[in-house]
Amino acid sequence: MKLGRMNHIGVATPDIEASIAFYKEVMGAQVVTEPFVLESQKVRVCFVETPQQGGALGTTGGTQIELLQPTEADSAVGKWLEKNPLGGQHHICWEVEDITEAKAWFEAQGKRVLGEPRVGAHGTMIFFVHPKDMGGQLTEIMERPREAH
Amino acid sequence: MKLGRMNHIGVATPDIEASIAFYKEVMGAQVVTEPFVLESQKVRVCFVETPQQGGALGTTGGTQIELLQPTEADSAVGKWLEKNPLGGQHHICWEVEDITEAKAWFEAQGKRVLGEPRVGAHGTMIFFVHPKDMGGQLTEIMERPREAH
Repeated sequence: MKLGRMNHIGVATPDIEASIAFYKEVMGAQVVTEPFVLESQKVRVCFVETPQQGGALGTTGGTQIELLQPTEADSAVGKWLEKNPLGGQHHICWEVEDITEAKAWFEAQGKRVLGEPRVGAHGTMIFFVHPKDMGGQLTEIMERPREAH
Repeated sequence: MKLGRMNHIGVATPDIEASIAFYKEVMGAQVVTEPFVLESQKVRVCFVETPQQGGALGTTGGTQIELLQPTEADSAVGKWLEKNPLGGQHHICWEVEDITEAKAWFEAQGKRVLGEPRVGAHGTMIFFVHPKDMGGQLTEIMERPREAH
């Protein structure tokens, strides 16, 4: 396997509207997508766009911030926020070309894949790998969107 | 201020050589820079290169992983590792055009800037902002390198 693009950093927040205001007003984000509920993860989610290398300030194409607010306390992100009430970096997401091959790859390396591949926030298939097998980072593996998101 | 490029994600590790092997052998990184000691932060540091959007697998230009191994237990990263012995995501780093203007901006927003700007791992001036003022994320602000790093 060759390393793919870092699609996004998942950032948990107790208040997604306050976080959007922070990224716009303090950090100067120019483009933030509309929040929507991702039922399978029990989160409200939106993306903060960032410029890529060589891109003008305020443009898109760089690694995104994925803001995540739990819709239920009894959910993965809800439990994470209990321990980290301010929010913060929750996971890192890497793109792969083929989700089935990627799952087989990580399993062959002895990495614990958490559940079966399912549809993620970008509409492509994703799975998570256990942080204890990944240098302490909860890691999302995501099939690369075929068009720019 | 307009949001700049996400330069890197700082990832603390108790063993930088093991982490380099992980990124190369498990994640498939093609380019990892040679580790060096950054005395001001009391860390050994290197960068895992990642492709940018549209870039082929194994190319560079995307947000980097900055691996950080403390050279002393009594250091910021050393203390962080005491609480997180496996390592993991330690900070996020954003590029700005002008470090002096950026410091004034964050201070005017009531954000706690941690110390004076100093030379960072990319050779440009950097400072950190307190995680409690930044949605739970320790945030590095870095003057953009004038040439590709």
